[in-house]
Amino acid sequence: MIVDGKPMRPIFVEEDAVKIIDQRRLPFALEIATLGAEAEAATAIKEMAVRGAPLIGATAAYGLALAMREDASDDNLAGAKARLAATRPTAINLAWALERVGAALIEAPASERADLAWAEAAAIVEEDVALNRAIGEVGLAVLREAAERGDGRISVLTHCNAGWLATCDWGTATAPIYLAHDEGIDVHVWVDETRPRNQGAFLTAWELHNHGVPHRVIADNAGGHLMQRGAVDLCLVGTDRVTRRGDVCNKIGTYLKALAAHDNGVPFYVCLPSPTIDWTVSDGLAEIPIEERAAAEVLEIQGQGPDGVVRPSRIVSPGSGAANPAFDVTPARLVSGLITERGLAEASEAGLSLLFPEAG
Amino acid sequence: MIVDGKPMRPIFVEEDAVKIIDQRRLPFALEIATLGAEAEAATAIKEMAVRGAPLIGATAAYGLALAMREDASDDNLAGAKARLAATRPTAINLAWALERVGAALIEAPASERADLAWAEAAAIVEEDVALNRAIGEVGLAVLREAAERGDGRISVLTHCNAGWLATCDWGTATAPIYLAHDEGIDVHVWVDETRPRNQGAFLTAWELHNHGVPHRVIADNAGGHLMQRGAVDLCLVGTDRVTRRGDVCNKIGTYLKALAAHDNGVPFYVCLPSPTIDWTVSDGLAEIPIEERAAAEVLEIQGQGPDGVVRPSRIVSPGSGAANPAFDVTPARLVSGLITERGLAEASEAGLSLLFPEAG
Repeated sequence: MIVDGKPMRPIFVEEDAVKIIDQRRLPFALEIATLGAEAEAATAIKEMAVRGAPLIGATAAYGLALAMREDASDDNLAGAKARLAATRPTAINLAWALERVGAALIEAPASERADLAWAEAAAIVEEDVALNRAIGEVGLAVLREAAERGDGRISVLTHCNAGWLATCDWGTATAPIYLAHDEGIDVHVWVDETRPRNQGAFLTAWELHNHGVPHRVIADNAGGHLMQRGAVDLCLVGTDRVTRRGDVCNKIGTYLKALAAHDNGVPFYVCLPSPTIDWTVSDGLAEIPIEERAAAEVLEIQGQGPDGVVRPSRIVSPGSGAANPAFDVTPARLVSGLITERGLAEASEAGLSLLFPEAG
Repeated sequence: MIVDGKPMRPIFVEEDAVKIIDQRRLPFALEIATLGAEAEAATAIKEMAVRGAPLIGATAAYGLALAMREDASDDNLAGAKARLAATRPTAINLAWALERVGAALIEAPASERADLAWAEAAAIVEEDVALNRAIGEVGLAVLREAAERGDGRISVLTHCNAGWLATCDWGTATAPIYLAHDEGIDVHVWVDETRPRNQGAFLTAWELHNHGVPHRVIADNAGGHLMQRGAVDLCLVGTDRVTRRGDVCNKIGTYLKALAAHDNGVPFYVCLPSPTIDWTVSDGLAEIPIEERAAAEVLEIQGQGPDGVVRPSRIVSPGSGAANPAFDVTPARLVSGLITERGLAEASEAGLSLLFPEAG
């Protein structure tokens, strides 16, 4: 998408080097980091300079390509795969990308491995971009119809960052928004701040501002009121996992917005690439364990002071502790539809089976 | 309630001087300010060293008493009333308290006015304390019953600060909690942070910590998830205005919690003194205008840095703006009951009329 008037992606190759946006510096500074060696790719993943499942996978793939430039032996291929896989052990895309690149190299002579790995990493990136664009086209039809039903202007509420910064481009929940904006639909976005980590206020807002999409950040508390007052035409969110019945696990707070949407007749759509569907799980509430993250994420926040310095600040009364569940489950009954690369599915086992007959 | 092991109120008289907690310094510092003259009382109200309708009224009443010490003439009585009333023009309690003290003075000789005003201000404080305590007793019965129904331990979720800092003591939503804790019920409180002004994380958490009530602060996003998982026994919130039908106007985000409570069968109670009922309004959504406050409240937050300095920090991407609706309306259908000084009322016209037959 657009940054400073020019197209940009969160990972790209320039003059034969891998570059990433260091997302830890956003939104207060845009810093491009060069990944010149396997170890730098590993550090970028481990220290969360890159985030979002597809982007982590792509970075690991390039990390393996960099390792092959350094030493293309079988030993180093196995070693680099293991080292990169250990950077974020629970990231499923990371393991998948490393397996894929590894499989493409294992039979090849050492002299060809660096080029092969590089090409495979590039293919992983382009496939993710195409996947998100396909989700965007399906969502665009939904937005276009909503705009035509109303006065031409459309207000979308989104939660967290399911944006291009979390993928290789387009994002998932943002893909329909960028396509709609680019084709001239008058789209405005309510950006949930998304406490405690403020991915909405930090990343989604930064994306939309740079691409020129009209938007306003709101406290997570405000969305229900805005829906009551008719100020939201539809909700678009991403997801970390969807069950075969259509329950949606996503960033904490998603469920509250789905409740408000349901109570006010506002359509609530979830955007996802089909690998996000976990066909082994049916009942999201009963079967998906919710990660409890560090209390410090609630107790402190990064911000920029009047002196321009970015630092953490304590924003909870000093004697008090916090709880920090990171995700919640929105039951399928509250979801108007699942926007996938193959089309719009009803959030139900029947709806998903119709689009993905080969699964389950 | 208890602070540093000793009972404290947000306004009190010590050695013939009026003292207040300067709430702008909370939770990072406890500073007691002395109001030695009418002008200091006026500044305390205007600059929000005191906040909350009952406390503003009490401070204004003492302000008028201080004015009578300075000059007890008819001219100064009228002038002081006007000056104090102008400090927060929309605060209904402020005007009410000034009228009440003024009425007690107007027929009295100048020489007696200072003492009379002082006594009237003290009466206003004690009546508010008794009112909140009565609300607390009604709520205590609700908590006691819930504790007996369960395993003896009870978890209450609250939003914003309807605590003793916003009243003359006890608070409204917190009064049942303090009484339950003091009588030995094992009560734990989930404290909604309450963005954007963080009254939960700053003030409610500070209150509960000092009084020794077990609690954890949570992001506003977390409450729905906690209710889904059975971690909340009931919700207790305050309110700024209740309609004759039982619709509840309160801090932004209250409606989202009421939706989640309803969806999960968690009782949702609203605590209020009866003057908060606006008998002239029926339909809260149609008739109550919602204040839109400054975007800066969303864009920046006060916090304490690693250097110990309390300063504002920008916590939204620099190019982006914000919207900031300050209140929302929870329809009566989502409210399990209204806890008033006279008892528990159903949130309906019939329920309120039963308790307040003289009204409407």
